[in-house]
Amino acid sequence: MSELDDDTAVRAAGAGTWSGSVSPRWNVGSAPNGGYLLALAARAMLAASGRPDPLSVTAHYVTPPEPGAVTVTTEVVRAGRRYATVAAALCQGGAERVRLLSATGDLAAQEGPTRVAAEPPGIPGPDACEPLAGERLPEAVHRYDLRLPPGSPTPAGPSDGRPFEVTGWIRLADGSVPCALALLAFADAFPPTVLRPLGVGWVPTIELTVHVRGRPAPGWVLGAFRTRFLVDGLLEEDGELWGEDGRLLAHARQLALILPRR
Amino acid sequence: MSELDDDTAVRAAGAGTWSGSVSPRWNVGSAPNGGYLLALAARAMLAASGRPDPLSVTAHYVTPPEPGAVTVTTEVVRAGRRYATVAAALCQGGAERVRLLSATGDLAAQEGPTRVAAEPPGIPGPDACEPLAGERLPEAVHRYDLRLPPGSPTPAGPSDGRPFEVTGWIRLADGSVPCALALLAFADAFPPTVLRPLGVGWVPTIELTVHVRGRPAPGWVLGAFRTRFLVDGLLEEDGELWGEDGRLLAHARQLALILPRR
Repeated sequence: MSELDDDTAVRAAGAGTWSGSVSPRWNVGSAPNGGYLLALAARAMLAASGRPDPLSVTAHYVTPPEPGAVTVTTEVVRAGRRYATVAAALCQGGAERVRLLSATGDLAAQEGPTRVAAEPPGIPGPDACEPLAGERLPEAVHRYDLRLPPGSPTPAGPSDGRPFEVTGWIRLADGSVPCALALLAFADAFPPTVLRPLGVGWVPTIELTVHVRGRPAPGWVLGAFRTRFLVDGLLEEDGELWGEDGRLLAHARQLALILPRR
Repeated sequence: MSELDDDTAVRAAGAGTWSGSVSPRWNVGSAPNGGYLLALAARAMLAASGRPDPLSVTAHYVTPPEPGAVTVTTEVVRAGRRYATVAAALCQGGAERVRLLSATGDLAAQEGPTRVAAEPPGIPGPDACEPLAGERLPEAVHRYDLRLPPGSPTPAGPSDGRPFEVTGWIRLADGSVPCALALLAFADAFPPTVLRPLGVGWVPTIELTVHVRGRPAPGWVLGAFRTRFLVDGLLEEDGELWGEDGRLLAHARQLALILPRR
């Protein structure tokens, strides 16, 4: 069992109801990281639909959760041959924390043509990259081995005509082999693209959608995140997660909001 | 009133319940186009939350609708200062057709920094482009003035190292000024990127998310759609909608499935 397995465990607690616990080990500041919550809720949605892979997961973050008991209610809207559609709500007490929609399926059973026209970005290997450093690193950072190329994220961005970008390598800090649920966590584990260049306070996610396109293999995952459009404080963050073997494992996009530094 | 206004009209029919009608004018084959259904459901979600703009809309297509009466049930999950979170289901009789999640807000009231690092793709102007031609054009095609550069979509794609791409100009055929809901329809109005290059039967959408980033101005909208990863019959389609003034109006991503030609 990995830390992520432990901390996303859910058990059936009635029809369409799953009990679990939000661990403080994934906190960023006082609230659990959104990617961790996505993995926890997706685990319940996979169990509810009896499918191994989260093909697409969309999360809207409603109110910040707290560490402690959590209930995920699931509704299997559609159970088709190729995929299922599942709605879910992650709640604590009477308070809803995250509302979700997912398509779940079996990537190994998909059949059809394959044509890929993209390659992972070229960055220095993990051994030439550096862990996040700083005095007030969030607790969640210690759940990952996350390494960025030296000097990144650079204090650049659209002012010089380039997108805001953050790239680097990630794996689970406990050395466990990543599963598809780890990809959901990785999709929200890197520093926000605009955080350092703009010196903003925080960048809360309004909505995050992750498409899992391949099951991970043991080893590092390369994450590449890019923001091209920051308009009136709203921004998208487009992410790709690649395996060491050059396969795309997931792409993600979130709509987020800049909050000024307090 | 435009055709789109007429055909997405909903009226309150009880708490969180909206009545409307699915018009056959937006059919592709025997089923209404997914973008049109997205606009109809979003209209109910905007009304339910009292906000003017669909910041983010995710739709999962459950079963194909038929022309005729439709009910949209809405639940305002969160009503915050900057945006609301709304869940919805589009149903006909007892059958659910589309399940949705949205963040709605007011683009004109957003405040914060703006930095943009992208430009619309360079394609010939609308007058140098050509309408879709063919013997069996879907009914929905006549709701739009949709023009593609001569010779496109080209029968190319990742086999020559480039993504599958479809670009072109679009506006509502009745000459009405596009609204934010029209952007939702435009996001699913172009021919699927892989349709001509692969000669596939159809490309049903599993999940479609559109982020509206700017309100449209009168005139043409430039659509650019790209598929980089077709893996085992599953593909993403990444779309951008640009105004004639060079502003990004929306970006969209869908996860879709190739069905073989029958």
